[in-house]
Amino acid sequence: MTMSLPTPSIAPPDVIRCAYAELVVTDLAASRAFYVDVLGLVVTHEDADTIWLRAFEEYLHHSLVLRRGDVAALGVIAYRVRSAADVDVAEEYYRQLGVPLERRPAGTTRGIGDAVRIVDPLGFPVEFFYDAEHVERFTRRYDVHGAGAISRLDHFNVATPDVPFARSYYEQLGFRVSEDIQDEDETVYAAWMFRKSTVHDVALTGGDGPRLHHIAFATHERSQILHLCDHLGALRESDKIERGPGRHGVSNAFYLYLRDPDGHRVEIYTHDYYTGDPDNPVVTWDVHDNQRRDWWGTPVVPSWYTDASLVLDLDGVPQPVVARSDDRESDVTIGADGFSYTRKGDTDTGFKLGAQV
Amino acid sequence: MTMSLPTPSIAPPDVIRCAYAELVVTDLAASRAFYVDVLGLVVTHEDADTIWLRAFEEYLHHSLVLRRGDVAALGVIAYRVRSAADVDVAEEYYRQLGVPLERRPAGTTRGIGDAVRIVDPLGFPVEFFYDAEHVERFTRRYDVHGAGAISRLDHFNVATPDVPFARSYYEQLGFRVSEDIQDEDETVYAAWMFRKSTVHDVALTGGDGPRLHHIAFATHERSQILHLCDHLGALRESDKIERGPGRHGVSNAFYLYLRDPDGHRVEIYTHDYYTGDPDNPVVTWDVHDNQRRDWWGTPVVPSWYTDASLVLDLDGVPQPVVARSDDRESDVTIGADGFSYTRKGDTDTGFKLGAQV
Amino acid sequence: MTMSLPTPSIAPPDVIRCAYAELVVTDLAASRAFYVDVLGLVVTHEDADTIWLRAFEEYLHHSLVLRRGDVAALGVIAYRVRSAADVDVAEEYYRQLGVPLERRPAGTTRGIGDAVRIVDPLGFPVEFFYDAEHVERFTRRYDVHGAGAISRLDHFNVATPDVPFARSYYEQLGFRVSEDIQDEDETVYAAWMFRKSTVHDVALTGGDGPRLHHIAFATHERSQILHLCDHLGALRESDKIERGPGRHGVSNAFYLYLRDPDGHRVEIYTHDYYTGDPDNPVVTWDVHDNQRRDWWGTPVVPSWYTDASLVLDLDGVPQPVVARSDDRESDVTIGADGFSYTRKGDTDTGFKLGAQV
Amino acid sequence: MTMSLPTPSIAPPDVIRCAYAELVVTDLAASRAFYVDVLGLVVTHEDADTIWLRAFEEYLHHSLVLRRGDVAALGVIAYRVRSAADVDVAEEYYRQLGVPLERRPAGTTRGIGDAVRIVDPLGFPVEFFYDAEHVERFTRRYDVHGAGAISRLDHFNVATPDVPFARSYYEQLGFRVSEDIQDEDETVYAAWMFRKSTVHDVALTGGDGPRLHHIAFATHERSQILHLCDHLGALRESDKIERGPGRHGVSNAFYLYLRDPDGHRVEIYTHDYYTGDPDNPVVTWDVHDNQRRDWWGTPVVPSWYTDASLVLDLDGVPQPVVARSDDRESDVTIGADGFSYTRKGDTDTGFKLGAQV
Repeated sequence: MTMSLPTPSIAPPDVIRCAYAELVVTDLAASRAFYVDVLGLVVTHEDADTIWLRAFEEYLHHSLVLRRGDVAALGVIAYRVRSAADVDVAEEYYRQLGVPLERRPAGTTRGIGDAVRIVDPLGFPVEFFYDAEHVERFTRRYDVHGAGAISRLDHFNVATPDVPFARSYYEQLGFRVSEDIQDEDETVYAAWMFRKSTVHDVALTGGDGPRLHHIAFATHERSQILHLCDHLGALRESDKIERGPGRHGVSNAFYLYLRDPDGHRVEIYTHDYYTGDPDNPVVTWDVHDNQRRDWWGTPVVPSWYTDASLVLDLDGVPQPVVARSDDRESDVTIGADGFSYTRKGDTDTGFKLGAQV
Repeated sequence: MTMSLPTPSIAPPDVIRCAYAELVVTDLAASRAFYVDVLGLVVTHEDADTIWLRAFEEYLHHSLVLRRGDVAALGVIAYRVRSAADVDVAEEYYRQLGVPLERRPAGTTRGIGDAVRIVDPLGFPVEFFYDAEHVERFTRRYDVHGAGAISRLDHFNVATPDVPFARSYYEQLGFRVSEDIQDEDETVYAAWMFRKSTVHDVALTGGDGPRLHHIAFATHERSQILHLCDHLGALRESDKIERGPGRHGVSNAFYLYLRDPDGHRVEIYTHDYYTGDPDNPVVTWDVHDNQRRDWWGTPVVPSWYTDASLVLDLDGVPQPVVARSDDRESDVTIGADGFSYTRKGDTDTGFKLGAQV
Repeated sequence: MTMSLPTPSIAPPDVIRCAYAELVVTDLAASRAFYVDVLGLVVTHEDADTIWLRAFEEYLHHSLVLRRGDVAALGVIAYRVRSAADVDVAEEYYRQLGVPLERRPAGTTRGIGDAVRIVDPLGFPVEFFYDAEHVERFTRRYDVHGAGAISRLDHFNVATPDVPFARSYYEQLGFRVSEDIQDEDETVYAAWMFRKSTVHDVALTGGDGPRLHHIAFATHERSQILHLCDHLGALRESDKIERGPGRHGVSNAFYLYLRDPDGHRVEIYTHDYYTGDPDNPVVTWDVHDNQRRDWWGTPVVPSWYTDASLVLDLDGVPQPVVARSDDRESDVTIGADGFSYTRKGDTDTGFKLGAQV
Repeated sequence: MTMSLPTPSIAPPDVIRCAYAELVVTDLAASRAFYVDVLGLVVTHEDADTIWLRAFEEYLHHSLVLRRGDVAALGVIAYRVRSAADVDVAEEYYRQLGVPLERRPAGTTRGIGDAVRIVDPLGFPVEFFYDAEHVERFTRRYDVHGAGAISRLDHFNVATPDVPFARSYYEQLGFRVSEDIQDEDETVYAAWMFRKSTVHDVALTGGDGPRLHHIAFATHERSQILHLCDHLGALRESDKIERGPGRHGVSNAFYLYLRDPDGHRVEIYTHDYYTGDPDNPVVTWDVHDNQRRDWWGTPVVPSWYTDASLVLDLDGVPQPVVARSDDRESDVTIGADGFSYTRKGDTDTGFKLGAQV
């Protein structure tokens, strides 16, 4: 059974794209070493408690805020809307949805103009803004690009128990689905949804939630992703590499999942495809297809399925986590009761994790 | 003095992106060897006189049509609009502009639905369509991707004498400028304009026109572009490499210009940047900046400035070419009267072509 | 206790490098599909029962022979010596060692001149030859290089129970050690040994033997290795990817392990380093260092430790396999009794496989 | 007519490889900015007048010495020999050749042991040494590898008027030819000669000499070379890029030529091939083949033919430069009297420089 959602009387705000995330971290120096010294993000500003960061091709003030706090959690995910008027639209739209909401004057978040912040129907803290401070775009500043140079924020991935409900909510907000994972009973395990012309601005991952599964940054080439692994090896921090590098089936992107010092998951991502035409074909994957999450059939590590970050409400209190009641992808694909195939119709599993345990 | 343009009473059609080009070629077998065997484009269909081609991530019927003819020329450039209704809008919009126009029923061009074809105010044959046949998207068909795999059509580049006029025309059609090249007297030498969230769908290059300067395809990585050069070398056709590979200043893209067997120019292009936000900063380059066209300061070969393809009117007759009356970029930057600098303020040229002649 | 070896009265033959391997395969068509259609090796010659293959930068007749047979096994590994006279030296050297030996006139193996074939003291069938037929070197034949182009055979890896004995044998033959894996009790788990100026021509892997652990081919760049994975995914044969891609600690090479249709293991390998100076420093790795086999800390799949190919004697009969009596690397590093660290001194394991099971 | 050379009564020293160069530079800070901040070489040691540098995979004290001086010149090129005894052999060998010679006790050059330094019969200052101080090999220090990481010194290239004489001299010293450029009259324009198993340790370029044409460093991948170009562009020093990047015909290497602040030429180089077998085929190129120096047919810039660095004698005085009397490659291939072809037998030139001037 899927929850239902009221339909506001006005059209939703015109969301352009995912724009920034704020992560609460418990050791700001350790986080700085990870995000600045390893990932190479550019520091737009920093003070004793907060660091505002951007990637090399970004000209808004930040795409990531690290804020010192006692409990590691997601502070907010923010979408940019097309105009200042859309912030007003967002306020009215969410008032009608009846969710917790606050209007935030310009500068409430450094570098960000007038904004509306809500708790969305999935339980996530979400901000909508248009105005933001412009800073230097480092696109051509190759003198400061490292071997693992990151171009821009690409997407958010959120863990939520009820994917069809979450999908309906985001469709109502104007997002479209590019790909999803289902089974023969039409249980939906995950969906990828976009506003900008890439595979996603937000992915919905079925699981206990609301929790942040990960944020993702894009690079131009795979060599930059491979360097990040080499770099972490040289620092003797290879245990920060959780999964990958590999090629996703879904999205066709080349990927790497890292865990920051608080365990927040960060994906580095490249090579997805253009989705901007209205009839962009939706790709539906069978949950039993062993190449859906890794095109090379490399097993997904269990922590990738189980771990995610708490998310805060508007008062900064962690949201309670609700367990998924539908089947879990890890249960139906791995181990005694699970099943995956490399070639549809194969009677043995052909699943490589079996060879590992 | 810049020409003026009537303003239609209705909003323009909602153009999504550049979608396909038709090139008239004089030796179809030679063109097939170039576009299929070297560039690796996928043949959707072919008959005795025509080949319909697409790149690996495209699912519409074609992005390039090669049609046999007596005179090598551009047959048409086509933009996709957001809906079938936008084709009607396009018809009305261009009727009010008073340009030559024909409505083309579905199938007039194989694989393309109902369309409007016009001669635009710059003299180019341009089509607008929405409906098109869907075919297999080869995104993940790595078994047929060669070492130089091409992802999708990226943009058109048109030579036109009066860039400010052309820019006004395209702005009225809803395109925005990402970058341009000017001089201290505000002479505009070129402008890059987009609908999809890349640096351009069409570039306007100041020169004798209307002529097609080039069409461009995108790849994921630079190694794919470098392989095309190696491949042409192995075939002893390195003289098909006209310019590059190199890094553009404008667009920051890594590029290569090839000439097909008829001399039509094809660019292979990767690494440009996201432009989809409404306040995307415009980058204006000084025409004397020697890194504007090549970030590494490699001289532009003269043929790149002088050569371009004829374009046909709706009856298939080559359009007369009008000479540019404004200063030419090659004249103001190269040779006795020209001037370029590597570092602004340098009194010597620092320009590398000087060392070559 | 390590076995001892007689010392011949003459100097050993001057081995240049590892040169070719013959694999017995049970389904020649399936093997051809793997080695030719996926790996892209060049067919020098083929008949109903045998295929002779080479990589793009090789000019000797073959570096891999696939021979149809009933039992999948290694037929021979062959080293090239510096001159025809060295073949005579090899014959005398091995007669004094008292191992099974046969002199093979030119052409006994197609494309190979006069040769000596022995069973070496480790139980492996090994050939020494100098003369060989020259064929076209495809270095610059980019028209036939695929996206996963392979340059040359790089090394053999043999499983043998007693690594110190095997190392002594190969040192006597003039090979030097570049890297090895030991523990605090000086148990040796593996050693890498070379004649040409790379990290190895042969690696000695402690395990039940004599068995062939793998053969390895070199590429120029990592992108070629990544394409092989994408290609196998597209063919729905991702289960042929056993381990990797990743970065080795030992050798610093970027690697991928595949399994051919008979389960023979093939490594694709790039980025190792120059070892040709006489004082090239030996790198000794602690068996408990979790980055020794993968610099990114990715767990070694168990099959990589356990599986290997049978090897034939000179009569084509599989050699009996002797169990390793020293500690096994998999036992001392994984699971209940094993221990690995990412940072020396860490008290918890920091070992990522733990998170997977 | 080719000069003749006495034949010493003893075998030559056993040279392993090219090992280091000393360049005299006029502005040490400017040179440091180039070699350390852009190329990323590692500083082993520096004082007020000298900087000792190495690349990431090197463990000897240095492969490049920058020494402050009044006249930009080559101080010395140094080859490493196989043993300390070979230094004595070198001394006797060159005494018999009757060239200027000095024995240099350990430490005369920081980090280098006992050495012999000579002026070779071509007029170049050349050192032979075995002992050298070992320092940390940064192979796996990815935390300090930049995006343009350089692995090791690869070769020297020397300009000399009489290539056949120079070739005879180096063959007598035990070097072998991998490739050369000749014309139909057997005039030799250049030859590539090696001791280690690559295409060359030294290239002989026909021209006025003795002068140093360039020194070359190797990288693992092309992306590292491309980054150096981007980096120089970002610094507005693109005029330090003289030629390339491109693919050589000779050697098949991917290349880039830079000019340091004194005009010393430095090549960055990758992708050549294994030459270590005794019967490695020699590749002879026709001087009129337009793909010999660039596989993509890109014209060689004239400065690459004309410019080179002075070389010092053992007293630090620049050697007089002797003009080449044989035909010059630039004369026979470019311009009014020259001729080059892309396809042998083509009657028009197909030569792209023609389109540029």
